[in-house]
Amino acid sequence: MRFTSEQRLDDDVLERHFTLGEIPGILWTPGSASASTPVPLILVGHPGGLRDMYSRLVVRACHSAAEGFAAATIELPGGGDRPRVADVEEARADLLRALAAGEPVGDDTVDRLVLPLVDQAVPEWRSALDAILALPEIGGPVGYAGGIMGIGIRLAVVEPRISAALLFAGSVVPRALVEEARQVTVPLQVLLQWDDEGNDRQSALDLFDAFGSAEKTLHANMGGHTGVPEFEGDDVNRFFARHLK
Amino acid sequence: MRFTSEQRLDDDVLERHFTLGEIPGILWTPGSASASTPVPLILVGHPGGLRDMYSRLVVRACHSAAEGFAAATIELPGGGDRPRVADVEEARADLLRALAAGEPVGDDTVDRLVLPLVDQAVPEWRSALDAILALPEIGGPVGYAGGIMGIGIRLAVVEPRISAALLFAGSVVPRALVEEARQVTVPLQVLLQWDDEGNDRQSALDLFDAFGSAEKTLHANMGGHTGVPEFEGDDVNRFFARHLK
Repeated sequence: MRFTSEQRLDDDVLERHFTLGEIPGILWTPGSASASTPVPLILVGHPGGLRDMYSRLVVRACHSAAEGFAAATIELPGGGDRPRVADVEEARADLLRALAAGEPVGDDTVDRLVLPLVDQAVPEWRSALDAILALPEIGGPVGYAGGIMGIGIRLAVVEPRISAALLFAGSVVPRALVEEARQVTVPLQVLLQWDDEGNDRQSALDLFDAFGSAEKTLHANMGGHTGVPEFEGDDVNRFFARHLK
Repeated sequence: MRFTSEQRLDDDVLERHFTLGEIPGILWTPGSASASTPVPLILVGHPGGLRDMYSRLVVRACHSAAEGFAAATIELPGGGDRPRVADVEEARADLLRALAAGEPVGDDTVDRLVLPLVDQAVPEWRSALDAILALPEIGGPVGYAGGIMGIGIRLAVVEPRISAALLFAGSVVPRALVEEARQVTVPLQVLLQWDDEGNDRQSALDLFDAFGSAEKTLHANMGGHTGVPEFEGDDVNRFFARHLK
């Protein structure tokens, strides 16, 4: 991991951009973090395109930092300046075509869109975790918070350092990952926008049902896809405070 | 309203038992409440039988008092020492018979069990509200928190002094009340125990969907009918703090 820039944001949050091989990423640490008082870490998932997502990510990271958590994210395969993943691009075109035509999105399209991304991204996130946890100011445990449920599900299953996960029910999930969800056992909070125009409510409820975690909580709210109420942000901090501190 | 006893509980909560005509009730007020600083009120619903429910109610009331809310409850028609309501008793026997036989509970049984209770109880709760709000140490606004969804739904529709409602999805709800739920417009939080053995999950989700409120939140948790996680108690306070203060 090589740091390429750093700046101190308001509220005493240190933002550092880094590269991990070819993969760009960002790490935010609260001013309170030091080698003698290392802080827990939250991995922040996003749909790809760090530059476009930056404003939303930095707000979430500063919110986490206010509670004493570091936050980190890396670019997805095919996102930002990273090389496109040809199969995924083709599946995305099929998806957009189906949506534009008002046709149902086939399971095959969903598989081709999500599975290669998850297969490639999860080892990258684990490498990022290795590198970030090697920093003296970052301790464990680790949480995952993100809207790409596939990556969150797979990480929660294969990565023992993940202790809790906050998932936004906002993306298409392949059948195979619903099956993987049954193996998830960490405490889970799932945010569902009840009238999300881009998301099938019943699929989201079925997926919530599938998770194997003994402690899992679903928060459903009104307000459409992007209308998650502000009070849920505070509750995310409380969820991670319960499980990462 | 006639106060019949009073005691000061731990944490400086004043508990007063009262009667309203023939109806017994309990009022809890935080030590901070006075004529110069009146406090908001939460009406606490329960399934009937104040004496049996007391331990759970007093815990919830003290939790609310810690956040600066008064809390009050009254006995339901047919509950405790109040005269039985013959039709309701008969419907309850039919319900238990159906459950014991593993048969589906008919809509007719649900109607006969819940509707007469709601019809009789709601005017009583409104009278209690008149009496309690006349006390100088109790101000508005008023919230309702309870598991008898029928009473909560009807109160939220007909009683303009109710500003927010917390409902436990834990009881059978007649079709007619699902229709009334469409008229509810106050902010709403619904608690659902995902694997509640005594509650049909899909009916609860359909009811949540029916509520007309622009701000409504569903919190689903694991743990069976009585296993509502402790952190939800804190969140109830935050919900009412957002809407009653």
